[in-house]
Amino acid sequence: MNKLEDAIILERYEQVKMILEKDPTRIDDLNDNGLNMTFLAAKTGNEQIVKYIVEYSRASMNTVDKDNRNILHYAAMSGNTNLVKYLVEKVGMSPVIGDFNLITPFDIAHDSKLFAMERYFESVVGTSLDNMYRNPIRTGMFPDPSIVRVNNDYYMVNSSFIYFPCIPISHSKDLVNWKIIGHAIADPEWAELDGLEGGRGYWAPDISYYDGKYYIAVTYRLNDTGIVYRKQMVMSSDKPQGPYSKPAIIDEDGIDPSIFNDDDGKRYMLLNRGARIFELNKEATMQISEADLLFYGDFKRAPEGPHLLKKDGYYYLFEAEGGTGADHRVTVSRSKSLKGNYEPCPYNPIMSQNDAGAAIQRCGHGKPVQTQNGQWYMVYLCGRMIGDGYSILGRETALDPITWTMDEWPIVNGLKGPSTLQKKPNLPVCVWDTVTNDDFIDEKLGLDWMFPRAPEQDGYSIADSYLKIRGSKWDLDSIDARNVVLRRQQSFKFTAVCKMKTPKLNTGQNAGITCFYDENTFLKFGVFNNNSNEEFVLQVVEHIGDQNRKSQTFPIDKDKEFIYLKVIANYLRRELLVSFDGNSYKSVLILNNVNYLCDEGLEKGKRFTGAMVGMYAFAGKNIQQESNDLVVEFDYFNYD
Amino acid sequence: MNKLEDAIILERYEQVKMILEKDPTRIDDLNDNGLNMTFLAAKTGNEQIVKYIVEYSRASMNTVDKDNRNILHYAAMSGNTNLVKYLVEKVGMSPVIGDFNLITPFDIAHDSKLFAMERYFESVVGTSLDNMYRNPIRTGMFPDPSIVRVNNDYYMVNSSFIYFPCIPISHSKDLVNWKIIGHAIADPEWAELDGLEGGRGYWAPDISYYDGKYYIAVTYRLNDTGIVYRKQMVMSSDKPQGPYSKPAIIDEDGIDPSIFNDDDGKRYMLLNRGARIFELNKEATMQISEADLLFYGDFKRAPEGPHLLKKDGYYYLFEAEGGTGADHRVTVSRSKSLKGNYEPCPYNPIMSQNDAGAAIQRCGHGKPVQTQNGQWYMVYLCGRMIGDGYSILGRETALDPITWTMDEWPIVNGLKGPSTLQKKPNLPVCVWDTVTNDDFIDEKLGLDWMFPRAPEQDGYSIADSYLKIRGSKWDLDSIDARNVVLRRQQSFKFTAVCKMKTPKLNTGQNAGITCFYDENTFLKFGVFNNNSNEEFVLQVVEHIGDQNRKSQTFPIDKDKEFIYLKVIANYLRRELLVSFDGNSYKSVLILNNVNYLCDEGLEKGKRFTGAMVGMYAFAGKNIQQESNDLVVEFDYFNYD
Repeated sequence: MNKLEDAIILERYEQVKMILEKDPTRIDDLNDNGLNMTFLAAKTGNEQIVKYIVEYSRASMNTVDKDNRNILHYAAMSGNTNLVKYLVEKVGMSPVIGDFNLITPFDIAHDSKLFAMERYFESVVGTSLDNMYRNPIRTGMFPDPSIVRVNNDYYMVNSSFIYFPCIPISHSKDLVNWKIIGHAIADPEWAELDGLEGGRGYWAPDISYYDGKYYIAVTYRLNDTGIVYRKQMVMSSDKPQGPYSKPAIIDEDGIDPSIFNDDDGKRYMLLNRGARIFELNKEATMQISEADLLFYGDFKRAPEGPHLLKKDGYYYLFEAEGGTGADHRVTVSRSKSLKGNYEPCPYNPIMSQNDAGAAIQRCGHGKPVQTQNGQWYMVYLCGRMIGDGYSILGRETALDPITWTMDEWPIVNGLKGPSTLQKKPNLPVCVWDTVTNDDFIDEKLGLDWMFPRAPEQDGYSIADSYLKIRGSKWDLDSIDARNVVLRRQQSFKFTAVCKMKTPKLNTGQNAGITCFYDENTFLKFGVFNNNSNEEFVLQVVEHIGDQNRKSQTFPIDKDKEFIYLKVIANYLRRELLVSFDGNSYKSVLILNNVNYLCDEGLEKGKRFTGAMVGMYAFAGKNIQQESNDLVVEFDYFNYD
Repeated sequence: MNKLEDAIILERYEQVKMILEKDPTRIDDLNDNGLNMTFLAAKTGNEQIVKYIVEYSRASMNTVDKDNRNILHYAAMSGNTNLVKYLVEKVGMSPVIGDFNLITPFDIAHDSKLFAMERYFESVVGTSLDNMYRNPIRTGMFPDPSIVRVNNDYYMVNSSFIYFPCIPISHSKDLVNWKIIGHAIADPEWAELDGLEGGRGYWAPDISYYDGKYYIAVTYRLNDTGIVYRKQMVMSSDKPQGPYSKPAIIDEDGIDPSIFNDDDGKRYMLLNRGARIFELNKEATMQISEADLLFYGDFKRAPEGPHLLKKDGYYYLFEAEGGTGADHRVTVSRSKSLKGNYEPCPYNPIMSQNDAGAAIQRCGHGKPVQTQNGQWYMVYLCGRMIGDGYSILGRETALDPITWTMDEWPIVNGLKGPSTLQKKPNLPVCVWDTVTNDDFIDEKLGLDWMFPRAPEQDGYSIADSYLKIRGSKWDLDSIDARNVVLRRQQSFKFTAVCKMKTPKLNTGQNAGITCFYDENTFLKFGVFNNNSNEEFVLQVVEHIGDQNRKSQTFPIDKDKEFIYLKVIANYLRRELLVSFDGNSYKSVLILNNVNYLCDEGLEKGKRFTGAMVGMYAFAGKNIQQESNDLVVEFDYFNYD
């Protein structure tokens, strides 16, 4: 313990002052627990000492610890409401900034039952914690959101890339709680995902409503080979959940199409680069004019995601700019006439994350929506970072209020960037059953399950409360792998467990659980028959680019009826466990860094999706011999 | 020449399209001159090709070349007004963004006599080029500006660090053209600069006006040794140019003091960290209350430079935040009562440079001023970068208009960051004689000349149109060097030449011209007597930290009456030349990288000043022997 730490803990003000006057750099010291002296003082809760540090030392008030906690988090821990008041009112610290786990000072006050402090935070924020929601509102791979309100219902679509069924449609009544109600393309015949590399497929859909029908526009992104590698598609339905019409193809290059219906009855498609516009026929199935540039963008790098909103005599053009990484942002411009000229908003970017250390990053690609009660909101994509810049959950969907400035510009969350905690919209709360445990009792697979590319016609079935997966001829590292059943990873920490009948494996076959990004990076943990029909083993294979890292093998008794495979995820760590009775689990292997399951974990192709977890069965290429056929039965898959 | 280059130059649209469809990455190609294909197309001026590149290729419209020229610069060169119109109106390019030499597309149109284009730019900008001014308005070392208007006159003060006379006071009537009219501390007895290391001394002064008197407050920054290393000083005068009263010392820690006079007659001093405030006596010579934190700041790193403005019922608090480097910015917050709470402006930072590649960087530390005609402006510091991030001119002063939003917040230059070209204030233009050539005809040294620390009493004299410098006992690498006569370097390129009577040097003595940053880094180029009284040589010595790089020596004829020493500066290159007749010059040495003359060129101490150029004479430590006395006579020093 150094002298300054001593003086702070013992609350000796004069001594703290003397030490820091003599050597101002001491304030940067860390104690044995890695805590800096400013945070230690805040946690100790002595106002006089904290004030001295704030006003006279070289400590910066935007310093955070490794978990992204700031001085107000630590002051909240002290329980001293006066200290917290000083930091909020004189230093300008916010009670609703989250650490990497989205824990805010407001949460600390609440969870520690510091009633006076919680009341104070309520007075600052203007509402109580239970009347707030937390971003992201859609966790895991829900990128590129587009939203539409029809009466009192909200519908949202997100990108699905090579995952089938394609383009999830989510429903909400309160903008906060959502569930998937259908998909824009649910017919494997129409999906056309075969042969596409990971990250291609269905990009950045838009949902809109016109004359009693829901319209979904999307970019179909092919592989890079060939001259045409991007087309637009439109499908429609009179029910939000579908079924939707067979996609109409619009052969115009670009990405991020959206449909704008002007007051005069004319219909338009907008798409990038920047915001280009062309007219559609009434059915929105055909391009009937050349594309024109409306406006390129205010930031001028990677301008995309154009959406038009007509309000009070202005056409407001929202764009995503800066690319979908750290520079991502939403900008707006406006014009009195549809075709321009567009004037950029002086307050651009109206949404972006300026704090490179914050929990919620990569904010952009937003679309506004007005509630039936007149409030305005924007859904936009974001990515949460783990310490070293890995966004393992892919790009998620966040929600923040839009306010209109007196000069009629829309700004999001008061230009403060993404919120962690935010007041709930003035809407009746809806809570859906969100299925995280699946016993496969329903005969239809739940809408949260996905396949990399459409499964084979007899690729899976549900019967007798078992999910029966037909083994794929190709392994997970192939774009021809089929029948892999996945769900989104939706939090940094989770436990997934499946109960599987011990499969009858021929040589070379294996089946089990997988943590999957795409065919380039995944891990599988399952039962393998590597050499003969005599011995089954447990094994872990990590596939990273062209590399396969294989664990040692652990023989198992193949006469056991069931095998239980479990993954415990903790940020980039994965513990893999096995059980034969569903009660006592044995650790098989610990992987300390699965960063290859993140967008940033490998440089290859388009990495735009996010981590998944699920079940697979690999039968091998001799599957045409009936003897090599493989069907693996899963009793349940729980995700927690 | 590659195929794409060929197709662009020959304006073959279909071929350009085919090449880019086949391989989109081709757009990133550079030709043999290092020009990218987008700029080549813009310079060629074919609208169809440029539109295709903008709307369908992967080129970003915020790409710049090594001189920071963008697509509009190149399109302007093409002479095609329609192309320029498309880029301004549909792509959103600005005609008034400068390259590293502050050349804008507007300038290109004007200088190339493209009248139609110039008229078009005039219609966009709203005025003609000759009614605009260019930032920075004060070039070279003029950091930390503070401004006050008294009737129709504007007065500005800037930091002077260890340079004497201390704290230049500049005068203007149009906010654009300035001249130094005096110094806050011109008495060597009061300067107290002896013993201070480079970068210490007088920091961030403020000028204000109260009851018929001008008040200047400043931080006196001592070396790091000792517990008290910062004090505040206040001096006053009834004339803006002085003489000012002997500094009153206010023993409160902090930097960047400013004086705020409230409507109730009370007087306050503000200073950092953040904005702390205490009351002053009527004479502003004494602290009469404890310091309180008004508000820390919105960005919360290195909050400083607080200035209060009372307007329409609000106290507006302006602060500099982020440190005086790349993150520098101006933020504002406001309160209905003096003591707060202060609410930060949603549009913060109201001034900052967000484009890391732009010519004008490090923008912050501003103070607002209202003209007699009701317009509002802010003076703020900035730094211009040379390619690799060196700001050789130190921190300069820029000017931009403040507008007030409908919700009564002040924003600077419409939140667009620093302007290169800006409409002149609605004020009568004033043009001062700015002395760049000095023949030493006046008996008093011009107010643009400075000394590192106050000169000795008999350190220099002017007589018979000669500046006579008494040789210093200590060399330039010592904080005890005296009588070094310097002026600011004010542009990336300059030529400085001095005519010197060949000095009578004893062994070890030398005299000549110097490019000077501080005692840690400089170069000197002069006449040396290195070994004996017999031979005089020309030599260049670069001093960088603890290193001396000495050039080879070039013998000269010491019987020549005059020697002319010339420095030709071109960014970080210096050519040193000599002449004996003032007509024909011979190159002595070329130095390709004098980055040690920049703030960023050495990591040692406080590097906050900027590059200087001037004259020196080094007599050596045996000066007490009369035989070793040295007086060097300079006939003129021209700077161009």
